[in-house]
Amino acid sequence: MVVIGNEILSGKVVDGNSGLLARELRELGVSLDRVVVIPDDTETIADTVARYSAEFDVVFTSGGVGPTHDDITIGAVASAFDREVVIHPELRQLIDGWIDGDLTPAHLKMAEVPAGAELVADEHFRFPTVMIENVYVLPGIPEIFKAKVAGLRDRLRGQPWYLRQVYVNSDEAAIAPSLDATLEAFPELLLGSYPRLDRSEYSVKLTLESRDEQYVDAALDDLMGRLPAGSVLRVER
Amino acid sequence: MVVIGNEILSGKVVDGNSGLLARELRELGVSLDRVVVIPDDTETIADTVARYSAEFDVVFTSGGVGPTHDDITIGAVASAFDREVVIHPELRQLIDGWIDGDLTPAHLKMAEVPAGAELVADEHFRFPTVMIENVYVLPGIPEIFKAKVAGLRDRLRGQPWYLRQVYVNSDEAAIAPSLDATLEAFPELLLGSYPRLDRSEYSVKLTLESRDEQYVDAALDDLMGRLPAGSVLRVER
Repeated sequence: MVVIGNEILSGKVVDGNSGLLARELRELGVSLDRVVVIPDDTETIADTVARYSAEFDVVFTSGGVGPTHDDITIGAVASAFDREVVIHPELRQLIDGWIDGDLTPAHLKMAEVPAGAELVADEHFRFPTVMIENVYVLPGIPEIFKAKVAGLRDRLRGQPWYLRQVYVNSDEAAIAPSLDATLEAFPELLLGSYPRLDRSEYSVKLTLESRDEQYVDAALDDLMGRLPAGSVLRVER
Repeated sequence: MVVIGNEILSGKVVDGNSGLLARELRELGVSLDRVVVIPDDTETIADTVARYSAEFDVVFTSGGVGPTHDDITIGAVASAFDREVVIHPELRQLIDGWIDGDLTPAHLKMAEVPAGAELVADEHFRFPTVMIENVYVLPGIPEIFKAKVAGLRDRLRGQPWYLRQVYVNSDEAAIAPSLDATLEAFPELLLGSYPRLDRSEYSVKLTLESRDEQYVDAALDDLMGRLPAGSVLRVER
């Protein structure tokens, strides 16, 4: 995911779109491998999109889409793939239907796409999503971003993950040997260890994950047999 | 900033550290140019840190520091600079002072640093910050991350930014020509335009920024003279 936004880098706005996409993709069984927040700069956007498009299966951009001077994403994404920017007749017609009177250059800017872009329609949202190569170009406004991601669900669905969580009241240092031993026995396990500083409810939360449900449950059994006696507060499946 | 965390990419935890660092740096007059969230993978961390260290003046990492198997940041940062991982005698002594009995391998892991690392002490926090080349290695736990960044303020201070905000009740498309004209007259101005979807308070927030206070105020005057009559709801200085 490429988040385009000076307002985020300058701390004026908190980016909620990357967290939303992370949760959506997780539910769909798709791994999110990278999130990068970059400034509103055409060359930086073009370079980043070109590099991520080559390195990853799918890229999402967020932000910089709209009618004003700082909405430079379409041009930058076009430049990432050496395409021209063109007015898409279908988008132009859509916008024409919403506006009284003649379209201004600012209105027309919202009909621009990289040449050869695909329009991905969805039933929930009246404006289609622009896709070019393996890049979905999404707007930064959170409500629209969320609606558009929801509209892409059926295209993105992968194999689900199985998550088990163990809450313990021991120090991380005290349980580290148990974690190491379980990982040696279950090398494919995704095992996370998250200490909670105030320790009000627990000291450490452990997360065990796999795309194989039997594997994660066998690893959980193994770990429960290794953790120090009395250290486990509760297990969530 | 390099955020290290499978838990963020999988949507289980929301990263608040990058927003905090963005706001802190902004207050100090330092530009944050990039935030990237990457998985807990030694090679990815090492590659990313090496690249960012060469490209930017200062790099902050967040996460992956601690006593467990998933705390691989120190080793990865060492590898980014072709350094060995060593036990720092001063850290070892500190940890020894807190622990009853012998130090375990898990305790000792918290005294590890890349060879040649500097320890940056601060008065607010008992554990110093590890710095190697131009990279500050910070923990992911939000309370500690925040305290450590606060402790680095005096080392990071730059030239402040001046911000003016204009709230308008017009469409972005309607004000776009005014913005373009002001930008042509004030090419150094950092001008942001942020539509609000529900329009309850305003339609668009405009942000004008510069490190030169006279410049930003002259640009503000220019813009106020161009915006459509009656469209400005209020100005914040």
